Amino acid sequence: MLIIIFKLDNIISIKDFDREDIEYILDEAVKLEDIAKSKEICEDLKGKILGCMFFEPSTRTRLSFEASMKRLGGDYIGLSNVGNSSVSKGETIADTAKMFEAYCDVLVIRNELEGVSKFVSDIVDVPVINAGDGAGQHPTQTLLDLYTIRKEYGHIDNLKIALIGDLKYGRTVHSLANALTLFNNIELYFVSPEDLKMPKEILHDLDRTNIIYRELENIKDVIDIVDVLYVTRIQKERFTDLEEYLKIKGAYIIDKNLINNKNLIVMHPLPRIDEINEDVDNTPYNKYFIQAFNAVPVRMAILKTLVKK
Amino acid sequence: MLIIIFKLDNIISIKDFDREDIEYILDEAVKLEDIAKSKEICEDLKGKILGCMFFEPSTRTRLSFEASMKRLGGDYIGLSNVGNSSVSKGETIADTAKMFEAYCDVLVIRNELEGVSKFVSDIVDVPVINAGDGAGQHPTQTLLDLYTIRKEYGHIDNLKIALIGDLKYGRTVHSLANALTLFNNIELYFVSPEDLKMPKEILHDLDRTNIIYRELENIKDVIDIVDVLYVTRIQKERFTDLEEYLKIKGAYIIDKNLINNKNLIVMHPLPRIDEINEDVDNTPYNKYFIQAFNAVPVRMAILKTLVKK
Amino acid sequence: MLIIIFKLDNIISIKDFDREDIEYILDEAVKLEDIAKSKEICEDLKGKILGCMFFEPSTRTRLSFEASMKRLGGDYIGLSNVGNSSVSKGETIADTAKMFEAYCDVLVIRNELEGVSKFVSDIVDVPVINAGDGAGQHPTQTLLDLYTIRKEYGHIDNLKIALIGDLKYGRTVHSLANALTLFNNIELYFVSPEDLKMPKEILHDLDRTNIIYRELENIKDVIDIVDVLYVTRIQKERFTDLEEYLKIKGAYIIDKNLINNKNLIVMHPLPRIDEINEDVDNTPYNKYFIQAFNAVPVRMAILKTLVKK
Repeated sequence: MLIIIFKLDNIISIKDFDREDIEYILDEAVKLEDIAKSKEICEDLKGKILGCMFFEPSTRTRLSFEASMKRLGGDYIGLSNVGNSSVSKGETIADTAKMFEAYCDVLVIRNELEGVSKFVSDIVDVPVINAGDGAGQHPTQTLLDLYTIRKEYGHIDNLKIALIGDLKYGRTVHSLANALTLFNNIELYFVSPEDLKMPKEILHDLDRTNIIYRELENIKDVIDIVDVLYVTRIQKERFTDLEEYLKIKGAYIIDKNLINNKNLIVMHPLPRIDEINEDVDNTPYNKYFIQAFNAVPVRMAILKTLVKK
Repeated sequence: MLIIIFKLDNIISIKDFDREDIEYILDEAVKLEDIAKSKEICEDLKGKILGCMFFEPSTRTRLSFEASMKRLGGDYIGLSNVGNSSVSKGETIADTAKMFEAYCDVLVIRNELEGVSKFVSDIVDVPVINAGDGAGQHPTQTLLDLYTIRKEYGHIDNLKIALIGDLKYGRTVHSLANALTLFNNIELYFVSPEDLKMPKEILHDLDRTNIIYRELENIKDVIDIVDVLYVTRIQKERFTDLEEYLKIKGAYIIDKNLINNKNLIVMHPLPRIDEINEDVDNTPYNKYFIQAFNAVPVRMAILKTLVKK
Repeated sequence: MLIIIFKLDNIISIKDFDREDIEYILDEAVKLEDIAKSKEICEDLKGKILGCMFFEPSTRTRLSFEASMKRLGGDYIGLSNVGNSSVSKGETIADTAKMFEAYCDVLVIRNELEGVSKFVSDIVDVPVINAGDGAGQHPTQTLLDLYTIRKEYGHIDNLKIALIGDLKYGRTVHSLANALTLFNNIELYFVSPEDLKMPKEILHDLDRTNIIYRELENIKDVIDIVDVLYVTRIQKERFTDLEEYLKIKGAYIIDKNLINNKNLIVMHPLPRIDEINEDVDNTPYNKYFIQAFNAVPVRMAILKTLVKK
């Protein structure tokens, strides 16, 4: 029997994962679905404490980590929305992290500065999970995105996936594009206005792999062939020219009419504003609410794997 | 053997209850008293999570729901005092509720808009509890008020109950008056200044029942005959004429001298400012601190009944 | 067999402790170390709830109490950083405390006013723990300081201990000096600038005991003989003359060079700013991170002892 071992001690960047690591987490998450839905009771992490250091606000990520730890029988302490880079006036992040290490068995960190969670993982002895640092990585979001795709299609290989919206600043689409290079025969479509195209660095990363991608401005050009429509919000604030924003905005709103009779699923990391029309909510295309739920089994799998290691 | 079944799937308004439903909850609460006082350990809701969406501040209601869930062996996640109608800037309440549904087994909602908890209960698959919406309903407060009365007198039927203070804006007195129509031979006395009388709609509701009520301005007219004095605060802000406020204010302050040698109990939903003098605290008339405690067994009964259903 | 009984029902001031009480808590804490590190699971306080009323901000104290209660299998509800002296506008602290009493099995209070926790302990029936009131007492900090010293040296008697920094306003050094009078053959060195010397009242307290103390301005005069260097921060705001502050500041910064080859440990209640140079962090002199961890077994010992009593 082949024993698969999860190789990482911290979850800092999706780039640290190979395909086997990703599949390990997704397979664990499958086993935890019933506990995530509270159909079964779990005591695997009884007596363990998750510490959340959230320097930026993040309701969704924080609440889902908290719920995940509690579903596993563990508990939670935390700081949310500290609002600056330090807890006590003038204390370094290092000292704050050492405090959390003293009270907890695993840390989750969100900070506006790229690299903070890597830095913390180097100075504490408990596992560290990056829950978003600046425009950098948000690896657990990527894992739950992959989990959602696999849950719906049974596989990730051989899919055509459109990422649509703000591809320049959205960290979820960067991480997801990176991760998809580990799978076979993927075709990516990057659908964005000219000003919000996928950054050159990401494209260079992709060029070094076998993945096929195409950049375009109108989702209609590929709507008939894609399997996954991964939607992100276009923020008005990104545009210097408001007229430009108003002109292009409509082209990036997904509604029932656009996707009717297509063979695809619609995903979104949430929260959404109006980039997915509410008339999609009650269609079978809507996978974004299931994707929101999937945060729980996937984050449970990560917590359990790291703490038990 | 007669099996009583609790008929509601959500707790939205006390008007949805019949007498049997109310008594079901009160009877369950009696059984949970020892657990509420932590004389016994309970694991009935182990693995279950309560989600609290509090858009308005409410220390007392939130903490008692949290304590109630934890006494039952369950756990809690929540947002308190979000301060506006949405969690993430621009997200709809519907999407926020769908997020909570994904992480929790039961939701408690407080919002300044009447009807929000009903709306949410229509779009999520977990039970929803209204913890106060606008000037509307606060049904769990009413249940714990009824529980307190029954605990002290052994019954609710045949009692004379004075509601005193701001009867115009106070949602607890509206709900309580509604609920008391389900009991037999109740006499209600509505004691308030002219400007803060019980709203016409509530009186019309009462007129359609057999309940006897009387409106008056001075508690002294009925102090010798009432069994329950239910006190609420008169807020200065309600008066356009400050002199008017100062003139009437004293008539709505309950002190030891007023109630001495009477045969009654004093209740208050709390917090109080000065409408009950502190010299009442150490008398046997004081049932408002017990009433505060009763929030726990009653909310435990509600949570357990809905989650186990 | 001699049965030692812990005599206090509330933890208000370190002055209420005799040596036996202190050693009782320290001995209990030793037994709880493995649970504090989550090497063992504990259910001793299962079903019990700790209530935290924190009117002043205190991340470290609050999180360590919360973690301690959870390590013991109990749970937590609380208010943090209420920011003024009352929870609901106009409600008295007494009424707020009665609410917490109704929901909890033990209360922890921090308030800017000296005497608040004593006052609350007189009106509620659950144990009360003072987590800092004004410039007064912070007894659980003192207990964990003593625990840290004993853990490193095996005893507290016969040690030479320097308290350095702001000795005028720092409540931790006041409580610690008081407590050390209960031990034998202690020598204390109070190292501070002229303006921040140990208050006369504390010195008078010490004069009534057998303890030996000396006041000085420069740590170098005793660095070769002390066993413990207990460092606290000098706040710029304490000085009316900024130049004065800048002139003396450097004399109260501990760095590796100062302590190299000495036979001592460095402690600090944390958070620190720059009064201990980071080059001390990775030396064996650094006991301040262990001291931070020690908060957990010591507060666990206190919670368990009071709740089980």
